[in-house]
Amino acid sequence: MTRTVIESATKTVTIGFDEPFCVIGERINPTGRKKLAAELEAGDFSTVEKDALEQVACGAMVLDVNAGVVYNSNPNPNETEPPLMTKMLELVQGLVDVPLCIDSSVPAALEAGLAATRGRPLLNSVTGEEDRLEAILPLVKKYNVPVVAISNDDSGISEDPDVRFAVAKKIVERAADFGIPAHDIVVDPLVMPIGAMSTAGQQVFALVRRLRDELGVNTTCGASNISFGLPNRHGINAAFLPMAIGAGMTSAIMNPVRAVEMEAIRAANLLMNHDANGGEWIRLAKVLDAVKEGASFAEASKAASAASSGRRGGRRARG
Amino acid sequence: MTRTVIESATKTVTIGFDEPFCVIGERINPTGRKKLAAELEAGDFSTVEKDALEQVACGAMVLDVNAGVVYNSNPNPNETEPPLMTKMLELVQGLVDVPLCIDSSVPAALEAGLAATRGRPLLNSVTGEEDRLEAILPLVKKYNVPVVAISNDDSGISEDPDVRFAVAKKIVERAADFGIPAHDIVVDPLVMPIGAMSTAGQQVFALVRRLRDELGVNTTCGASNISFGLPNRHGINAAFLPMAIGAGMTSAIMNPVRAVEMEAIRAANLLMNHDANGGEWIRLAKVLDAVKEGASFAEASKAASAASSGRRGGRRARG
Repeated sequence: MTRTVIESATKTVTIGFDEPFCVIGERINPTGRKKLAAELEAGDFSTVEKDALEQVACGAMVLDVNAGVVYNSNPNPNETEPPLMTKMLELVQGLVDVPLCIDSSVPAALEAGLAATRGRPLLNSVTGEEDRLEAILPLVKKYNVPVVAISNDDSGISEDPDVRFAVAKKIVERAADFGIPAHDIVVDPLVMPIGAMSTAGQQVFALVRRLRDELGVNTTCGASNISFGLPNRHGINAAFLPMAIGAGMTSAIMNPVRAVEMEAIRAANLLMNHDANGGEWIRLAKVLDAVKEGASFAEASKAASAASSGRRGGRRARG
Repeated sequence: MTRTVIESATKTVTIGFDEPFCVIGERINPTGRKKLAAELEAGDFSTVEKDALEQVACGAMVLDVNAGVVYNSNPNPNETEPPLMTKMLELVQGLVDVPLCIDSSVPAALEAGLAATRGRPLLNSVTGEEDRLEAILPLVKKYNVPVVAISNDDSGISEDPDVRFAVAKKIVERAADFGIPAHDIVVDPLVMPIGAMSTAGQQVFALVRRLRDELGVNTTCGASNISFGLPNRHGINAAFLPMAIGAGMTSAIMNPVRAVEMEAIRAANLLMNHDANGGEWIRLAKVLDAVKEGASFAEASKAASAASSGRRGGRRARG
């Protein structure tokens, strides 16, 4: 059975076909967040701290950390990303105990991150592009970590799912040449927007099944891409995630601070028999009751986890 | 390709693997609705009328009509159900144009319903019990209608999905002996509550795939049974339906007046490429906007369908 093991200094998370769906929190990422980028350039890490704590309270099992900021003062990410990545990872692993996912397109930032991170982080990412394979797979081998493999190559992102499968297969085979086992490859089959490609959902469900059955690998995706450009995106995401989980998807890089999507994932875990006695579902139902009364999902989740860590096994003081 | 065709006097609905999920409205059923049962005994059909109109406005494509009331004045359903079934069906088909599903455990009520209903109704139901097979299949053949086949037999409801599959297979084979084709059998594999049986979800998903691949039949279920006894039932139903649809389920007997479940089904249709250009999704998003502003889902749906039938193809007068 395929098991991808990710570790912090104290905590182990396993991505696997018989495990609860692994939610990888995507918030700590300055790409497209101008305010956060400016804060980081100014040395202000308060948003990173808040995002780390909130995401874990809301149910993130792993936190993605991306330092992809282009400074006004220095536009060269090869110089700026590695030290920022180190700083962000050290900060986050000092605040929360979940394993981390080191996310960069700059190999030097990935290596700086690997050197700074305790435990066994997930590396994000390699692609099927030749220069990426040659730059990243040696790092994966040297540090003995699992890696996200994105199904595009030097010809770009194919709209043909058979081509994307072939790219994933090539990465798995190339990794094997480096002595990296398939269970340490987490394939992102690439989710297209359903508004632009009406077969996008069926493509992903079929790809996930093939990746699982034929390559024996775990899978992940940027889940919210499916609903890009359409109204009521959370409603689409909240159906996509359970369907992907039913097809065999084992993780997603996503925003865990959104109640709708997290509710869908918790329900899917229950329906896949990955929530013993419905404990997680019942806990979430209480949080959602608080949300109905006006709390934000993050606030209600934080209050619930504080109450449960303070009184684990005991009665709640108030109903 | 398996296509189950259901018709009213003017409308055709096809249940099929390549069709939008068929929502069969369950509300017109006095079982467990004491107030409605008392109204029907008193000759008051106002709730039936309201339920018919609301369900169709909310998106029901077929309406189930059940006359299973036990009168205080006459406790024999063999005498009371047939005339009540006739009356209810005539009323409903006079009000709405969707096909109907004649729902009874009393064979005489099913036959009365078949005689009263225009078009090609769905008969609900036969089971694997010998006396039911012998009573119902001749009606199915005589009236040339499709039938719901429930996977229990004289030994009851098995917790073993292989036994439930075998019962479904037996019904399909017995129907063939009567000259009834598999595409006119819609199998209900029976959904157990996940709170009582932690494998209930996986059982259904696997059964639906087998029923489709091995028997070539359409499927249905009483969807809300999955969440029986658990908190936040709509959240479980709203993940179960897309997962069941992804596994190949093609219809459900359910309450279409609940926005959460209908949103999940519309999103699943979109993700299965059964919603051309996302038209249904975009229409629903507008209805949900009105719900956010305080309207009930039924009110908002009725307003939207009135606006669209009044000005089809034109601009909306107000945004």
